[in-house]
Amino acid sequence: VQDIIKVAVDAMGGDIGIDSTVEAAVKVANRLKNIQIVLVGDKQKVEHKLNSLKLKNQKQIKVQHSSQVVAMDELPSSALRGKKDSSMRVAINLVKSGKVSACVSAGNTGALMATAKFVLKTLPGIDRPAITTAMPTKNGFVRVLDLGANIDCTSMQLYQFAIMGYVLAKTMDNNSDPSVGLLNVGVEEIKGSEQIKEAHALLSKIKNLNYYGFVEGDDIFSGTTDIVVADGFVGNVLLKTTEGLVKMIVLFLKQAYSANIFAKIVALLSLPVLKNFKRKLDPRRYNGASLLGLNGIVIKSHGSADVLSFASAIEVAYEEVANDVTKKLQDAFSVYKMEK
Amino acid sequence: VQDIIKVAVDAMGGDIGIDSTVEAAVKVANRLKNIQIVLVGDKQKVEHKLNSLKLKNQKQIKVQHSSQVVAMDELPSSALRGKKDSSMRVAINLVKSGKVSACVSAGNTGALMATAKFVLKTLPGIDRPAITTAMPTKNGFVRVLDLGANIDCTSMQLYQFAIMGYVLAKTMDNNSDPSVGLLNVGVEEIKGSEQIKEAHALLSKIKNLNYYGFVEGDDIFSGTTDIVVADGFVGNVLLKTTEGLVKMIVLFLKQAYSANIFAKIVALLSLPVLKNFKRKLDPRRYNGASLLGLNGIVIKSHGSADVLSFASAIEVAYEEVANDVTKKLQDAFSVYKMEK
Repeated sequence: VQDIIKVAVDAMGGDIGIDSTVEAAVKVANRLKNIQIVLVGDKQKVEHKLNSLKLKNQKQIKVQHSSQVVAMDELPSSALRGKKDSSMRVAINLVKSGKVSACVSAGNTGALMATAKFVLKTLPGIDRPAITTAMPTKNGFVRVLDLGANIDCTSMQLYQFAIMGYVLAKTMDNNSDPSVGLLNVGVEEIKGSEQIKEAHALLSKIKNLNYYGFVEGDDIFSGTTDIVVADGFVGNVLLKTTEGLVKMIVLFLKQAYSANIFAKIVALLSLPVLKNFKRKLDPRRYNGASLLGLNGIVIKSHGSADVLSFASAIEVAYEEVANDVTKKLQDAFSVYKMEK
Repeated sequence: VQDIIKVAVDAMGGDIGIDSTVEAAVKVANRLKNIQIVLVGDKQKVEHKLNSLKLKNQKQIKVQHSSQVVAMDELPSSALRGKKDSSMRVAINLVKSGKVSACVSAGNTGALMATAKFVLKTLPGIDRPAITTAMPTKNGFVRVLDLGANIDCTSMQLYQFAIMGYVLAKTMDNNSDPSVGLLNVGVEEIKGSEQIKEAHALLSKIKNLNYYGFVEGDDIFSGTTDIVVADGFVGNVLLKTTEGLVKMIVLFLKQAYSANIFAKIVALLSLPVLKNFKRKLDPRRYNGASLLGLNGIVIKSHGSADVLSFASAIEVAYEEVANDVTKKLQDAFSVYKMEK
C-alpha cells in the first residue's frame, strides 16, 4: 500500500489562476492514485471550476477557502503583513501545521519566498533558501541554483547551495554521486570574484561531495556537471536569458517554415520529425522550481503556467515528498555542520 | 577618394592561428579596396601562407615580424612582462605609434585586455575598458557590455559602460538615439544589488542619453533595448550560456533530422528553408568584440574563429575606424564629464 501524499495548491496564484491550477490538480489526481490535493482559494469559484471537470475519485481533491489573493506585482513585505488569509499564505500554513507535506504556487515569487521563509523557517545549518529547477542539457538535465532568491551571496551561502543541490540530485535523480560545478567566468583558480574563490576553497575541502570545480556558461547545456551553483543574480539572468533565446529560436524556425508555399509544405512534413525536438525543449516539462532549504516543501510554478505546465509543478511537489527531500537535507546538514 | 584604413592583425593568435588569420586578411583585402593590413607574426610562416593565397593587390597586405607568441592559457601578467615581442604586443604597439588605426587578435583575452590597457591607456573619463559585441535579437541585434573584462563593477563603471554603448551604437548603427537598458533581476526599482540601484539612479539623471531603465534576461533577445549593460561576470555568463544553448539546439535539430530515413529526406528538403534560419544564428557573423574605452581600437576575435569568422572581426575593426569611434567616445566623455 502506497502512502497518501498530501499537497496544497495555491489555486488563485499565477497569471491564469483557477483555469490553470484547478484543471492541473484534477489531471494529476486522475493520474496519481495516492495524491490528495487541497485547493486553496475562493471556495465558490474553485468549486465551480472543479464541477466542470471530470475527477475520477472525489476524495482526492478538497477545497479550503481563503478570502485574499496576493497580487503578482505586490511587494513581499505587503503580502506578508497584509494578506494573512491569502491563498498563498493559507497553503503554506497547511505545510507548517503538517496537514499537507508540500505546497505549490504560481504566484508572486518574492511574496512566496518571504512568506515561506517566515512561516516555515530554514533548516538548521542553512542560512538562506535557494530556488532551483532542472534545465535540459545535451544528454539529460542539470539542476541550477540559485535562480533568484538571493541577490548578493556570501561564499558560505554558495557552499550551502552546493550541498543542497547535491542532496536534491542524489535523492531525486537516481544518481548515487552527482557532480557539482561552481559557475565562474573561467576555469582557472585565479578567476572570479572573492566570494566565488572563497566558495571554491571551501568546497574543495569537504569530503562526501563530488565537487567538480569551476564551470562556465557553456558547460550548463553541455551537461558537464549534474548541478551548477551560482548566486541568485547570475542564476536569474541565465534562466531568463535561456527562456528568451529559446523563444527567439522557435520564432526564427516558424518564420523559416512559413516563408513561402514550399517552406510550408516542408513544415508539414517536418512536424513528426520535430516532435521529439520540441518535447526536449518544452519549458512546460521543466516547470516547478523548488524553494530549497526550508523546513517543508514549497514549489514555485512559472507565473504564466498553463494546465500541462502547472501539472508538472504539482508532480515535482509529489516527487519531493515521496523521496523525503526535507529529511534528507536535514540529515545532510547535520553531518556537514560537524565537518566544518 | 576613400581614405586608406590601416589595421594590424595578430596573425599568431587563436586556436587555429595563421591558417585562419592570414586567409581572412586576404579575403577582406580582396573585398575592401581601401584597407591595408599589417600581419604581425613569424615572418617566414606568415609569408609562406600568404604566398599560397590569391591576393589581388599585393600593396594591401604587409608582414611585420615578431619573435614571440602569447599562449592561450598564459597569465596576463606573464604576457605583459615576458612577451614584449609577441605578435599581440607588436600589433598593439602599431596602434599606439599611429602606424595603424586598429588591431585585431584571436589570442588570449586576458592578455589582450591587460596589454592593450597598459600600452594604449583608457580615454579621459573612462576608468575601465569594457568588452562588447552585437548579438542577434528577434528583429535585429543588441550590443551587450561588459562581456567579461570587469568582474566586480562599481556603479560608476556601469554608468560609463552605458555611455560607451550608447556612443558606439549611435556611431556605428545608423541609429540617432539608441536605447540603453540596465540588466537586472526585475524591473521594479527596489530590486537588484546596491551597485545596480546606484547606477540606475545615476543613469536616470543624465540628459542626452536614451536610458530605458531596467531590463531582464529575456529582454536581450526580444530586442527591448539597443544596448544592454551588465557587469563583466554576468555578461560573460550570459554570452557563454547563449553560445552553449545555441549549440545544444542545433544538435537537437540535427538529431531530429537524422533519426530515420524519412527524417533524413525531410532534412534534405528543409535545407533551403533553414538557410536563412542558420544565417540569423550563425555566431561567425557576430564575431569581433570591441575593447571599448581605450585610446585606440582593439578588436577581440573568438579564439576558435575560422576564416569567415575572423574576417568578420577584421571588418568590425575597419568599420570602427571608418566611423571614428575613438574620437566620438572622447568627445562624448568630455561632455558627460562636465555634466556629472
